[in-house]
Amino acid sequence: MIYFDNSATTKPYPEVIESFAKVAGEYFGNPSSLHGLGASAERLLQKARKQIADLLHTTPSEIVFTSGGTEGNNLAIKGAVHAAAKNGNHIITTEMEHASVLETCRSLEQEGFEVTYLPVTKDGSIVLSDLIHAIREDTILVSIMHVNNEIGSIQPIEEIGRYLADFPKIMFHVDHVQGIGKVPLDFNKCHIDLCTMSGHKFHGLKGTGILYVRSHVKLSPLFTGGNQESKFRSGTENVAGIVAMAKALRMTLNKQNQASDVAEIRDYLMSELKKIEGVKINSPESGAPHIVNFSIPGIKSEVFIHALEESGIFASTTSACSSKNKAISETVLAMFHDLSRAESVIRISTSYENNLEEAKAVIQAVIEKMAKLQKVMR
Amino acid sequence: MIYFDNSATTKPYPEVIESFAKVAGEYFGNPSSLHGLGASAERLLQKARKQIADLLHTTPSEIVFTSGGTEGNNLAIKGAVHAAAKNGNHIITTEMEHASVLETCRSLEQEGFEVTYLPVTKDGSIVLSDLIHAIREDTILVSIMHVNNEIGSIQPIEEIGRYLADFPKIMFHVDHVQGIGKVPLDFNKCHIDLCTMSGHKFHGLKGTGILYVRSHVKLSPLFTGGNQESKFRSGTENVAGIVAMAKALRMTLNKQNQASDVAEIRDYLMSELKKIEGVKINSPESGAPHIVNFSIPGIKSEVFIHALEESGIFASTTSACSSKNKAISETVLAMFHDLSRAESVIRISTSYENNLEEAKAVIQAVIEKMAKLQKVMR
Repeated sequence: MIYFDNSATTKPYPEVIESFAKVAGEYFGNPSSLHGLGASAERLLQKARKQIADLLHTTPSEIVFTSGGTEGNNLAIKGAVHAAAKNGNHIITTEMEHASVLETCRSLEQEGFEVTYLPVTKDGSIVLSDLIHAIREDTILVSIMHVNNEIGSIQPIEEIGRYLADFPKIMFHVDHVQGIGKVPLDFNKCHIDLCTMSGHKFHGLKGTGILYVRSHVKLSPLFTGGNQESKFRSGTENVAGIVAMAKALRMTLNKQNQASDVAEIRDYLMSELKKIEGVKINSPESGAPHIVNFSIPGIKSEVFIHALEESGIFASTTSACSSKNKAISETVLAMFHDLSRAESVIRISTSYENNLEEAKAVIQAVIEKMAKLQKVMR
Repeated sequence: MIYFDNSATTKPYPEVIESFAKVAGEYFGNPSSLHGLGASAERLLQKARKQIADLLHTTPSEIVFTSGGTEGNNLAIKGAVHAAAKNGNHIITTEMEHASVLETCRSLEQEGFEVTYLPVTKDGSIVLSDLIHAIREDTILVSIMHVNNEIGSIQPIEEIGRYLADFPKIMFHVDHVQGIGKVPLDFNKCHIDLCTMSGHKFHGLKGTGILYVRSHVKLSPLFTGGNQESKFRSGTENVAGIVAMAKALRMTLNKQNQASDVAEIRDYLMSELKKIEGVKINSPESGAPHIVNFSIPGIKSEVFIHALEESGIFASTTSACSSKNKAISETVLAMFHDLSRAESVIRISTSYENNLEEAKAVIQAVIEKMAKLQKVMR
């Protein structure tokens, strides 16, 4: 099996699953309980919070644990604009965000908020001047992802953050779900107020996530109740999942010194794919090291995904969260305005567990399967 | 160790943790992915959904997976009233709900909804005529818990549901977090529209929960995005946690034939506690078989909890979710209007893993610790 769908989800590290099982079995107390079993669970929780804060160069009180990326994006966006509604009702985002940002913005439009969706260039990036022109007196939130989940383009977060630093009423949210562990991001230098991460995208467990909430940022919670997580997120904490996530984050960040290996795989794939007639590369040259997105106009994404699977290769079409709903990539459509390109998208997404031999097998398979399918279709 | 705090959280069954570890390691695909790894995860997810639906005598399409009880109660209540806001803006609940219901109702009051909080009798139960009088033209939701988490009283859910069946515009939500596996509840017979359950309360894992949503009930989601869970709850599903929860539910419901053992423990505790001078029983005679709540006026809850812990006994004060915020039991205060009783509350909550010997040790410890503390205080 060659698993090249790491942007959809990653295989949890065995050590992460072991940690989970140990904590779930031995430290099962409710961290809110006043007795010793509760206290030992609470200590583990705070230790994990401190570890994660240290890894992210933030403080523990700025770490809010969630159930994942979708919750994180919803809490950040809805939470921020509901808490700041008295300051205005305008939101700025981009055309190529993850569904959990785009659909959340659309739901806020139903509530009466106004949203500007910034266009993207053929490099999958916004242009800063577009953002500058979009800012209004009543703008309260800018939400822009760091690394795009479909094509791997990297937005100029530092540049955007520096510009927004002059607008204290505008909260800056960054969806960092695809970037964490792959493309470094300095929350302070980038003046980020809210930043979403998801455990299962870096070899942690599904059902775990992190929302960074800068000190003094106000959020209206999605869950009200026992006031856990600094009142931002009520509910009994998933202590075992959080401890496991802290381990997964540490292990993944330790592997960032292997970033050149991942980049080598990408460079190899990009240069070999370019040589194949009929293949169009959608990922920008300057993109993240772990995502290669290409189209084979004329062959529908789903058909080619299944053809690759016959060779034991697992790749994907668009975002997993959208793949069952839509036959085309909205992101690639927004970038190239080319329908046949948008409906024939293939995404290869690697992790530090992949190697160059696997990439070679993929190129071999792409050539073979293309020839076979094109023959059938002729 | 004698663990008598099962209403705060339960120890996961070892088989549940094993299931989790196996699924997390071997079936790690994203259920939304189009390839075989995604499909095998999706199959496990749907199998767990079917198992849970069968155990609850519902259909799979009525089962929505959440991150726990707090999310379930928030999604049910906020989701129902936001979806039905055009029909009215009045909500009915009780004075003694869990914080995730009470605080959610209070947050909806901030949004302009009106809430009636029904009083409770000394038995910890509402009176049906109070509910009947509270219903208005614009009532859209009634939210009443089945088994109270602090004192174990059982609300007349069937009677309430039968009455509400004549009001098709009123949604009926039941918080069944404490009842599931202990006090049977027939969702159909009780005309329940929405019912919340939490995995870690029946020896499943923290971070998992079930919201039953009757067919055709409309809910405005808390999380928007990839439209998982019939659009009610976007976000990558915690497949391993859900499979583990299905196992925990099956195992717990299989043990319901041991209900008489748990009832025997309760009856023993109730009758022995009654004999102790200075102890006041707060739980009603007709309560759930797994909760015994009593007060020792004059000795603060927290002091006595720590005294019991010296003997290796883990009990609790109020709900774990409220224990760090409040020194008194709002529920006991609502029932008896007696402050010294409300600030000296002790809750013993059992599971099918407990036995009568442990209950005997508890009674022994209560007598000893009371004598010791009262001597110190004199």
